[in-house]
Amino acid sequence: MIYLDNAASTQIHEDVLNSMLPYLKEQYGNASSIHRYGRIAHKAIEKARKQIASLINADPSEILITSGGTESNNTVLRGITMGNACNHVITSSIEHDAILEPCKQLEKNGLTVDYLPVDKFGTVDPLELKNHLSDNTCLVSIMFGNNEVGTIQKISEIAKICNEKKIPFHSDAIQAVGKVPIDVKELGIDLLSISSHKLHGPKGIGALYIKNGIKIDPVILGGGQEHGLRSGTENVANIVGFGKACEIAKNNLDENMLYVKNIRDLLVDKILHEIPKVTLNGHPISRLPNNAHFTFLGVNGEDLIIKLDEYGIAASTGSACSVNTQRASHVLQAMGFSHEQITGSLRLTVGIFNNEKEIEQTVTSLKKIVEELRSFSPFKEKYSFTSKV
Amino acid sequence: MIYLDNAASTQIHEDVLNSMLPYLKEQYGNASSIHRYGRIAHKAIEKARKQIASLINADPSEILITSGGTESNNTVLRGITMGNACNHVITSSIEHDAILEPCKQLEKNGLTVDYLPVDKFGTVDPLELKNHLSDNTCLVSIMFGNNEVGTIQKISEIAKICNEKKIPFHSDAIQAVGKVPIDVKELGIDLLSISSHKLHGPKGIGALYIKNGIKIDPVILGGGQEHGLRSGTENVANIVGFGKACEIAKNNLDENMLYVKNIRDLLVDKILHEIPKVTLNGHPISRLPNNAHFTFLGVNGEDLIIKLDEYGIAASTGSACSVNTQRASHVLQAMGFSHEQITGSLRLTVGIFNNEKEIEQTVTSLKKIVEELRSFSPFKEKYSFTSKV
Ligand SMILES: Cc1ncc(COP(=O)(O)O)c(C=O)c1O
Ligand SMILES: Cc1ncc(COP(=O)(O)O)c(C=O)c1O
Repeated sequence: MIYLDNAASTQIHEDVLNSMLPYLKEQYGNASSIHRYGRIAHKAIEKARKQIASLINADPSEILITSGGTESNNTVLRGITMGNACNHVITSSIEHDAILEPCKQLEKNGLTVDYLPVDKFGTVDPLELKNHLSDNTCLVSIMFGNNEVGTIQKISEIAKICNEKKIPFHSDAIQAVGKVPIDVKELGIDLLSISSHKLHGPKGIGALYIKNGIKIDPVILGGGQEHGLRSGTENVANIVGFGKACEIAKNNLDENMLYVKNIRDLLVDKILHEIPKVTLNGHPISRLPNNAHFTFLGVNGEDLIIKLDEYGIAASTGSACSVNTQRASHVLQAMGFSHEQITGSLRLTVGIFNNEKEIEQTVTSLKKIVEELRSFSPFKEKYSFTSKV
Repeated sequence: MIYLDNAASTQIHEDVLNSMLPYLKEQYGNASSIHRYGRIAHKAIEKARKQIASLINADPSEILITSGGTESNNTVLRGITMGNACNHVITSSIEHDAILEPCKQLEKNGLTVDYLPVDKFGTVDPLELKNHLSDNTCLVSIMFGNNEVGTIQKISEIAKICNEKKIPFHSDAIQAVGKVPIDVKELGIDLLSISSHKLHGPKGIGALYIKNGIKIDPVILGGGQEHGLRSGTENVANIVGFGKACEIAKNNLDENMLYVKNIRDLLVDKILHEIPKVTLNGHPISRLPNNAHFTFLGVNGEDLIIKLDEYGIAASTGSACSVNTQRASHVLQAMGFSHEQITGSLRLTVGIFNNEKEIEQTVTSLKKIVEELRSFSPFKEKYSFTSKV
C-alpha cells in the first residue's frame, strides 16, 4: 500500500516504538506509586514532558499531557470559560470539529461564539478578528494549519492582536506541530494543542501547552495527576513514545520539512500537469508542507478514494478525523466552494516515509481512475471530457 | 523485585502486548479512514468491544471506550446529570477520588450529593441507601470493590433498590472487573466503569458500560467517534490490548481467582501469625481476592514502603492511583479508624504473576522491617514492643 493519508494518522517511528517497549513490558508501574516501579514511570514521564516542551520552545511546566488532540481542544474551551466571568469566544469557521463541537456546547450554555469567515484560500483576516474583539472576549482560538486544505494562518499577527488586549490566544496546531517550526514564545501563543499520532507517535496521547500564568479549570477530575489539571493513571508508554516522537521531529525538522515539501510539490506538479480540469485548493504558498488538496471536476471524491484503495493507495476526501465523512466539508463551504467542487475533492497528505517512486505510481493510477470515473460522469458533456485525457 | 502493588497497576500480559504490536507497527490507520488501513483499525476496535462486553455479559453496543477509569467515572457523573433535570446524586464515603472529585464539582454546580457512611469493614448499608433516595435522585454510584481495603459491596441488593425506583445505578468496578465474576444483566447494573491497566492490559484506556436505554451526554466533543459519546481519534493499539486482556481474564477467571486468593490467603495468614500487633482491615470475607490491607501498630506506613522497596518489594499505603498519597486515607477515616491506625497501614495486592516463594520472601523481609521500625517507634512503650518479636 502507498499511504498518502498522513494528516489522518501517521506510522509510528521505529525509535518511538522501541522507546515505548520497556514500558509495555517490565516497567509497568503506576507513576504515582512510591516504590521503584513508580519512580521509574514518573521519571520517564518527566523526560517526555521535556521533549514535548522542547519541540515548541515551552517550559516543561507548561505542558499538560492529555489523551489526545481532541481532549486538548476540549480542555481549552471548557477550562478557560468555566470559572471565568466570560461570555464571548472567537474562533474560525474552518476549525476541526474538536473545536466546533465544544463551541456549540458553549453556545448552548449561553456564551456567544463568533466564527470568523475565511477567504477563498482558507485564510482568516486578522483585521476581522480585531473587529470582533470585545471586553467580554475571554478566548480566541484559531487553528495553525488546516487539516483539510493545509492553509496556515497568520498566527503571529493574530497572537499580537490578542496579546495587546491580554486575551488568551489558543491555536489548534495538531496538523502543524513537528511539520513546521513552532516557537510559542516567539509567536506569542498562550495555549496550543498537540496530538502525538500526527507526528509519528502513538495514538491516544496529546498535550496542551498552557503558558505560565494562564489559568484553566480541569475537565477530568480525580486522583490529581498533572498537578490536578488532568486526573487519571498516566499512560506511561504512550507518553514516552510521544516524547520520543517530539525529540525526533525536532532534531530533523528542517530536513524533513524540505523532504516532505519536495515530494508534495512533485505530486502537485504532476497531477496539475498530467490530469486535466484539476485545481489545487488551499493557499498556494502558506500551507503545510505535507498537504495537497484537489478538486477533480466531475468526479465524486468518495468514488476516487475507493478506487484508489483498490489500486493500493490510501487517500482521503478531507477530514478523516471525523466519522461524519459523508457531510459536505464545512471548510470548503466556508471557502466559498460550490457543491460540485466540494464533491470532487481529494486530500493527499505525504510523510517522511513516502518516496518519489510512490508519488509517480500514485499519479499514474490517479490518471487512470479519474479518466475512468469521468467516462461515467453526469458532467461529461458539461466539461467536455474526452475518453482519453 | 517482588511486585505486590497490583491494585495500582498490573503487568501487561504477554499475549496482550503481542496483540497490540501490529497496531503499533504496520496497522497505523485512523479508524475513521475509508481506505484499507482505516477499515482494519475499525474492525480491530469492534472485535475488542465484543471482548470487553463479553467479560461483563453486556452487548457490544453498550460499551463506550474511554481513555481510562477516571474518564469513565467522570463521564457518568457529568454525562448523566448534565441534560437531566436532576439535582440529587448518592454515592459512598469510600469512593475513589475519580468519583469524589467530580461529585464535589457537581456540588459546586448546585447539586446535592449524599455520601453514604460505611461500617468498620467498609460496607455500605443498602437500607441506608434506600432511606436517602428521593424523587430528585438521578444517579446512585457505589463502587464494586474498594481500592484500598478490598471490601466488596452488596451490589445486587443496591441495584435492586435502584431498579425498583428506576434510578440509574452506576458502579466503579475498576478494581473488580477481571478479578471476580461480574454479570451486569444479572446484577442489574446500569453503568459500570472499567480500567484496562488493572487487568493486565495497557494504561490509558478504559470503558464505560451503558445499559441500552440509559441516556448520557458526552463530555469530550469533536469528530463524533464512539457514536458521538466520546470524540477523538481512537487509540487502536490500546483498545486491541484492552480487548485481549478482557478475553484472557474471562477465559481464566475462576482459575485465576482461586490462584490469587490462595496466595493472598497465604500472605495474610503468615503476616497475622508471624508478626505481632497486626490487624487485617476491610471485610474478612466479602473482599477482592487479590487484596490484603493491614495496620501495623506503631509503624509509619510510608516508612514501611520505603524499607520494603529497599528489600526489593513494591507495596503501597493505600490508594496509589492518586498523587495525594500524603493525605490521610478517607476510606479508613470513614471506617472509623484512628489516626494511628491509619498511619500504620499497608496494602499488599497480589496478582497472577506472583508466586508462593515471593510471598514467603515478603513475609520474612516484612518481619525484619517491622521489628526494626518498631525499635525506634515513639509507641514502643505503649505497645510494649520487645526488641525481638
Ligand atoms: C476504584 C478506582 N476507581 C478509579 C480509578 C482510576 O482509574 P484509572 O487508573 O484508569 O484512571 C482507580 C485506580 O486508578 C480505582 O482503583
Ligand atoms: C486540526 C485537528 N484538530 C483536532 C484533531 C483531533 O485530534 P485527535 O486525533 O488527537 O483526537 C485533528 C485530527 O484528528 C486535527 O487534524
